[in-house]
Amino acid sequence: MKLNLVDKHQSTINTAVSALHSRAFFAHFPENPSPDVYGEHADKEGRERYKALLHNKFEELLQQDPEQWVGQEESPYEQQALGVQYPYFAPEVLVARAEEAYHQWRKLKPADRAALLVESLERLRARFFEIAYATMHTTGQAYMMSFQASGPHAADRALEAVAAGYEEQTRFPESVEWEKPMGKYNLKLNKTWKAVPKGVALVIGCATFPTWNTVPGMFASLVTGNPVIVKPHPKAVLPIAIVVAEVQKVLQENGLNPNICQLAVDADERLIAKELAENPSVKLIDYTGGSEFGNYIERLPGKVTFTEKTGVNSIILDSMDDLDKVAQNLAFSVTLYSGQMCTAPQNFFIPEGGVKAGGGTVPYEQVVQKISEAVTALVNNPKAGPHILGAIQNPATTGRVQEAASLKGKQVLGTGDFTHPVFANARTCTPVIYEVDASEKESYSRELFGPIVLVIKTKDTNQSIAIAKELAQQYGAISCGAYTTDPAVKEQIMDEMGLAGTPVSFNLTGGIYVNQNASFSDFHVTGGNPAGNASFTNPEFVIKRFTWVGFREPAAR
Amino acid sequence: MKLNLVDKHQSTINTAVSALHSRAFFAHFPENPSPDVYGEHADKEGRERYKALLHNKFEELLQQDPEQWVGQEESPYEQQALGVQYPYFAPEVLVARAEEAYHQWRKLKPADRAALLVESLERLRARFFEIAYATMHTTGQAYMMSFQASGPHAADRALEAVAAGYEEQTRFPESVEWEKPMGKYNLKLNKTWKAVPKGVALVIGCATFPTWNTVPGMFASLVTGNPVIVKPHPKAVLPIAIVVAEVQKVLQENGLNPNICQLAVDADERLIAKELAENPSVKLIDYTGGSEFGNYIERLPGKVTFTEKTGVNSIILDSMDDLDKVAQNLAFSVTLYSGQMCTAPQNFFIPEGGVKAGGGTVPYEQVVQKISEAVTALVNNPKAGPHILGAIQNPATTGRVQEAASLKGKQVLGTGDFTHPVFANARTCTPVIYEVDASEKESYSRELFGPIVLVIKTKDTNQSIAIAKELAQQYGAISCGAYTTDPAVKEQIMDEMGLAGTPVSFNLTGGIYVNQNASFSDFHVTGGNPAGNASFTNPEFVIKRFTWVGFREPAAR
Repeated sequence: MKLNLVDKHQSTINTAVSALHSRAFFAHFPENPSPDVYGEHADKEGRERYKALLHNKFEELLQQDPEQWVGQEESPYEQQALGVQYPYFAPEVLVARAEEAYHQWRKLKPADRAALLVESLERLRARFFEIAYATMHTTGQAYMMSFQASGPHAADRALEAVAAGYEEQTRFPESVEWEKPMGKYNLKLNKTWKAVPKGVALVIGCATFPTWNTVPGMFASLVTGNPVIVKPHPKAVLPIAIVVAEVQKVLQENGLNPNICQLAVDADERLIAKELAENPSVKLIDYTGGSEFGNYIERLPGKVTFTEKTGVNSIILDSMDDLDKVAQNLAFSVTLYSGQMCTAPQNFFIPEGGVKAGGGTVPYEQVVQKISEAVTALVNNPKAGPHILGAIQNPATTGRVQEAASLKGKQVLGTGDFTHPVFANARTCTPVIYEVDASEKESYSRELFGPIVLVIKTKDTNQSIAIAKELAQQYGAISCGAYTTDPAVKEQIMDEMGLAGTPVSFNLTGGIYVNQNASFSDFHVTGGNPAGNASFTNPEFVIKRFTWVGFREPAAR
Repeated sequence: MKLNLVDKHQSTINTAVSALHSRAFFAHFPENPSPDVYGEHADKEGRERYKALLHNKFEELLQQDPEQWVGQEESPYEQQALGVQYPYFAPEVLVARAEEAYHQWRKLKPADRAALLVESLERLRARFFEIAYATMHTTGQAYMMSFQASGPHAADRALEAVAAGYEEQTRFPESVEWEKPMGKYNLKLNKTWKAVPKGVALVIGCATFPTWNTVPGMFASLVTGNPVIVKPHPKAVLPIAIVVAEVQKVLQENGLNPNICQLAVDADERLIAKELAENPSVKLIDYTGGSEFGNYIERLPGKVTFTEKTGVNSIILDSMDDLDKVAQNLAFSVTLYSGQMCTAPQNFFIPEGGVKAGGGTVPYEQVVQKISEAVTALVNNPKAGPHILGAIQNPATTGRVQEAASLKGKQVLGTGDFTHPVFANARTCTPVIYEVDASEKESYSRELFGPIVLVIKTKDTNQSIAIAKELAQQYGAISCGAYTTDPAVKEQIMDEMGLAGTPVSFNLTGGIYVNQNASFSDFHVTGGNPAGNASFTNPEFVIKRFTWVGFREPAAR
């Protein structure tokens, strides 16, 4: 490498490895988008750079000779095409280029790869605002979430994957003299080991979190020596295109083939995900998206796969100090990005006898009412609502909210008229709440992606736990929230939901929500239920991307 | 636990964890069966205890109410039934008992489970000789291999799995206070993590290495909190039955359900491996054996599998100091246990221009002749032959050796008459060697299990490497031996065979052979080619047996 990037970044990598193990709070990239942190004009400049990209060819990628230029993004805030055009390459071209680049990339030392990747993340820091606007106008996320999730939080998740991959590849000695006493003499062998990468990696992104859900797999495959083809959702390309471009620039500056990391964009008439996934040279696949395609990915023979699919997330309400605070916290969780998060809660289990709160018992109906009121108050608060709800990425989500009326349940809260104060043409939707009986399993045992809450009346908390566990085991779950002041109930929930591979947040009130997951501390998706087999970033997420191969030879005497 | 086993064994576990990371020589259990090491009468007593087990019910297991008593083992040395009868239980009974025992076992701390398992291995030490005779008379291994492979080497592999599983489960803190600065205040969460076991584990053994290939998966699943059902090959039950019995005794003595580790034996009329494997409660499967059944196991939906199947192992001959020493070393490798090892070499690649040796070039024909002569000399050496060859476990192997004559090749060495000096009725077979042209791929691109060597004449070493790599990638390989004095060729072989996930032993002569794999140092099977997806014991081998699940709650203010 031209630059001595290892010296420059090794301490960052070491700090990140330590953070992985301490699991205490750690963030390398500041989540606060204020001018004090990122510079006085950073926001304005980022917005201008974003605007300059619109209705233009995206020329930053270092991939040569595109077959055509394609693009189909549109802003959920403006319901108009972005007009950004990306270079299109046939799947076989992408794979052939990745295979060629592989042999250069795999021969670098893990420390070199890690340093190059950290360098590219540091470069990205200067583009967080541009990425934020690109994220807003592809996903519909509100500004703050767009900045944090696609910028610093995503970069921290990428750094986490780099750190974990670096650690696992350097966990065993490169060489050792093995000396076995044989009585009269010693047998001496020189042994060496190599972490051999699996081969070409594919990362398939989703439309709602185009960088946050893509960079962990992308950087995990890269740091372990695999060339990566990033195939974003056709409706959310721009944020990750900027990331890929920055990686390619760092590669090229250091004398490496930029095709080590390629962007693969669908053409209108040729969706390439399946062709790429089924290519025999593709050995690793990271996927975020719906369960049907995810299950297809997991079943492909001869591939190592990491998936994040859909799940049915539960809230278990048993007992609490202050029901109002709980209702406000939950209202925020279901309103945030209009429920378009994989961690958003959907099913609220409330015992028919009500919940214990503040020394008394609050009847079931009143609990439901409190939650409904808290949602309404939040949505109608002009200082909060628009900044929390954002816009709806996919028209199908709006349709799903309307169809919820056909559930076998009783409507508690219907979707309200909501006009975005800045973007009058925004596609918006506010949370709806339906009551469903515990016996109506069919209604609540699937993910209703979007701002849809189902309140399920149960006999008691035991039944709430039993159903939440069963749903997680059968249909998957990525999060679970529980409210209880009883240590025995808490222990029971930890035990039962633990068996269902579902993390539990207890008694959250105030400024922390069940939807949120912190890099370097919270494992995201556990791999322990049908919601996915990947976890950001546990050791399994990086170890499966390479093979330990040993070599040995008698030592010279 | 009644006994304070953690205090007793923690230092052994810590030492084993260190050994895993240093990868230098380490053995906890001595491989030398001499009276100085194991006691003056250990061998004699072991033989007597083995004999007392014959033609009897095996009553040591603590599994209640068998449906019937079954047994179908016979000695390859005597070609007579052993007459040992084992308790038979229907698969659904075994699974139900495992599920019940699961909830006790999973709640122990990893350190407690590790200590209980080390205690059972220490108890086993006193039964190594008994296990050795049981291994001889089920597998046909010679005495020394039976002792070492089934006793100390297997116990060390088990200890290795315990150490790796213990380390991975204790790698992250049990709890931490996570404190995030939010500007005006800090968000504080108490977080805890649990390593949640996957569930009921099944271990399917093979007929040739009934303990060595079974205990890694068995102890790896146990240490990570999963109840285990051990299903040995019906022809090689006794060695592992003794292991299971010792584990059960330690469990019961410590107030635990002995069904945490059960033995599952096939009845004559009901082979239970498939029924067990397909049971939805069975979440983990370890398998050693043929590729057809192994591929079926790997394809079962919803299971985490670890397989060791068949492969095609190559020897690449390029250049060397002393051809005689090389021929002797290779002769030993193909004669050892009559080629019935998964690591035994099969395909010898020799360039048509011969090999460079001791400053000159030895013509191809002479290289082949030297190897053939070395095999003949070893087999005919009465002090060595019987102790290396052993007997043939399965009559099908003898048949395969005879059928080798139908290969499209030229016979170099036919199987010789070989009468075992001690067991006149032993089923024996000496190595055969055939020459096959490199163009006859069909002949050499499959495993010919048993003492069958194919010499393949290639254009040059480049072609030798290319074919060896292709075979490993397409059909799997567990070992590779290479002889070269050229550093560039060595580098090329490491690189190419590394890409095929195949470990390479270079220039072995003297008392170390390509077939051998050392616990705590050599990874056995890499998981990087179709020979299997398991590796003893890399981190992946234990990590995939449990799920990290996190719990969090606001800290009290």
